[in-house]
Amino acid sequence: MSPAPGPRPGGRSARIQQAVHASTRKLLDERDRADITVPMIAADAGVTPSTIYRRWGDITELFADVALERLHPDAPPRETGSVRGDLVAWAQDYLEEMSSPVGRAALRDVVMSADTVRSEDGTNQFRCATFCRTQIETILRRGEPVQGVVEHVIDHVVAPIIYRILFDLDPLEADRVGELVDHALDAAVRV
Amino acid sequence: MSPAPGPRPGGRSARIQQAVHASTRKLLDERDRADITVPMIAADAGVTPSTIYRRWGDITELFADVALERLHPDAPPRETGSVRGDLVAWAQDYLEEMSSPVGRAALRDVVMSADTVRSEDGTNQFRCATFCRTQIETILRRGEPVQGVVEHVIDHVVAPIIYRILFDLDPLEADRVGELVDHALDAAVRV
Repeated sequence: MSPAPGPRPGGRSARIQQAVHASTRKLLDERDRADITVPMIAADAGVTPSTIYRRWGDITELFADVALERLHPDAPPRETGSVRGDLVAWAQDYLEEMSSPVGRAALRDVVMSADTVRSEDGTNQFRCATFCRTQIETILRRGEPVQGVVEHVIDHVVAPIIYRILFDLDPLEADRVGELVDHALDAAVRV
Repeated sequence: MSPAPGPRPGGRSARIQQAVHASTRKLLDERDRADITVPMIAADAGVTPSTIYRRWGDITELFADVALERLHPDAPPRETGSVRGDLVAWAQDYLEEMSSPVGRAALRDVVMSADTVRSEDGTNQFRCATFCRTQIETILRRGEPVQGVVEHVIDHVVAPIIYRILFDLDPLEADRVGELVDHALDAAVRV
């Protein structure tokens, strides 16, 4: 017996996913998320509600899945000529994106998804954090390797950006991003 | 005409709040949060569901309210003889509390609550962050005043602790807390 096939790009499963995602995004643009129901999305996407329940479990997981797709970077980080410059540019873009109403809502949708099971590629929260980590690693590979610097960028640059957004504090000022990056780089050197 | 009275301690309103909170906590200890409904809490607390809807709006806001009560510090931070020592001791306790299943769930409940309106004392998220800020300020008032250090402790100590929990990364190791505190204090001095 061959293993159960995963969703193939262009297959029926992928088409359903695309349609459901598109309808969810459309409804999220049109109305308050509290007013959106699974039957509403199903009707718009031309599938049955049970297709959605079977695949996503509940609306929270569907919202998280759509949010993850929104948060997935669609390009490698910009090159500015230096690792420090690349990190600052990336972090400023990230801060701007995450502070927007769409970014904030996507972050909250990811945090809201059930985090009890870590599947093969992790919980939704872990996958979201991995998007950042991958971008940071791409930048760091452009320079001399320094031990542990990824963790420091996560703790000292990504964490304050996200914490301030999720807990409704004044967002980090864009011109403090450089300071945070220096901080993370210094910390990595010092350890 | 006198202004509308707020809930008085010991008044009917406070008694309802206590009963509903107690029933919510009890049900949260007994079963999965996804299985808990407003009518279930109302029956346990001996109130009508509409009392709960009128006061909290929906179950997400009630969970957030209960979570905030759990997260509210019940004592000032421990004194160890130095500001650095107090910050490290506080942050280690905070890390331990927030990493526990109850702490993680409470944090997520706070983040999930609607953050569109900032009332007089802020959104639930803002109030949760203020609990930390107040404890940090209490510690800092025990030593020489240093400009801006509260913000640095929030960015470099609180934020990485919470980010790693909410995004399901390996939690910060307790012995790295001292390093983060030194970092925050250095940063404040350097600016």
